[in-house]
Amino acid sequence: MNLILLSEDDFIGANCVQLQGRRFKHIVEVHKASVGDLLSVGLIDGPIGKGTVTSLTPDAITMELHLDQQPPAQLPVTLILALPRPKVLKRVLIAASSMGVKKIFLINSFRVEKSFWKSPLLSVERMHEYLLLGLEQARDTVVPEVLLRPLFRPFVEDELPAIMEGSPAFVAHPGAEEPCPRDMKRHVILAIGPEGGFISYEIEKLASIGFIPVSLNERPLRVETIVPALLARIF
Amino acid sequence: MNLILLSEDDFIGANCVQLQGRRFKHIVEVHKASVGDLLSVGLIDGPIGKGTVTSLTPDAITMELHLDQQPPAQLPVTLILALPRPKVLKRVLIAASSMGVKKIFLINSFRVEKSFWKSPLLSVERMHEYLLLGLEQARDTVVPEVLLRPLFRPFVEDELPAIMEGSPAFVAHPGAEEPCPRDMKRHVILAIGPEGGFISYEIEKLASIGFIPVSLNERPLRVETIVPALLARIF
Repeated sequence: MNLILLSEDDFIGANCVQLQGRRFKHIVEVHKASVGDLLSVGLIDGPIGKGTVTSLTPDAITMELHLDQQPPAQLPVTLILALPRPKVLKRVLIAASSMGVKKIFLINSFRVEKSFWKSPLLSVERMHEYLLLGLEQARDTVVPEVLLRPLFRPFVEDELPAIMEGSPAFVAHPGAEEPCPRDMKRHVILAIGPEGGFISYEIEKLASIGFIPVSLNERPLRVETIVPALLARIF
Repeated sequence: MNLILLSEDDFIGANCVQLQGRRFKHIVEVHKASVGDLLSVGLIDGPIGKGTVTSLTPDAITMELHLDQQPPAQLPVTLILALPRPKVLKRVLIAASSMGVKKIFLINSFRVEKSFWKSPLLSVERMHEYLLLGLEQARDTVVPEVLLRPLFRPFVEDELPAIMEGSPAFVAHPGAEEPCPRDMKRHVILAIGPEGGFISYEIEKLASIGFIPVSLNERPLRVETIVPALLARIF
């Protein structure tokens, strides 16, 4: 936790918060904070800055806030991800959130197992929790938006063309001849398939609306590896 | 398992292998192979190609091999990694192996917990297992070399200068002013610190022998995120 994320519910005064539970425990056990210490804090979807510890009891901490900085720049990307298996989804949400992705569509694909769509990890609360872990890691406050699209074709035909408007769109496809672009200074749409990749029909469907298949090289990689790799390559 | 890795022990004839156990199970349950099918196979530290299933019993499969291709290009990097916590180490070894890293030093650092050095995951057998998972994922056969260096200063002072000879060397340091280089066409030494980063003394020590501190941006990232990100950015 490189940043302690605060919500409106934590405020007990204009510039004063009180924390219990997970964050309190972390501050005591990991930061080993004492009264007077300065901690990195940020308001969810708001500014970041410092909190001065003003009191510490066995089950709560209070801090006075000085929030005077903007959170780090976001990545100008819309990530379209075939829904990974639940434990991979967790890692990918944390990684994408920490790298500054702010919009993620989780979509269906032929190789996505139907059971993945029933995972309790897809609840708003659980996903929010993972997204916050990524923000705390990267000292960010702006919570990414995650949207579920369990039908491939209607999403690609009816919704995706408007999302893509004005942005170059790439689909990761191991072995594609076109190398993944580097150092893009503009908004990009990036689609990444499931383990085993998108099937030909899906690649063709995406290509038909303007997606360019690209690859890092000929190596097929795990989803949790390719997501940070492509984000770091493209931006 | 995008490639079935074979060792000399699997051979029952000049071009014929018999498999049982994990790989047999995977071929039957995931590939659902039948006699006559072609599977992607590779010989550990050797060529890759196809195996034709010649027989299938309830507990073994035999294949005739046709190995006529070279494994994919390796990444020209020597990775120097502060030893991560065991479950992270596993993921990082799989990811680095899948991306084509062939030489990894696991080193000590102030923020590496002493207990990590006693983890059973550091056994040659366990690490070999994870490295093979990465190779199977990426259709590679060349097993990376992993070397343990549990003393920071002797490693940096006595051994690292010779390892670096002739190669640019970078140390990942969140917030470093120098951006991480892109598209390097030559061998690179890349050092990545523990969660929380290298301490100032360690950064200075590395800088004193020629390492350049670089960063993707101001976001501190988890080790399992920064490793694929930096490898994809640099190459």
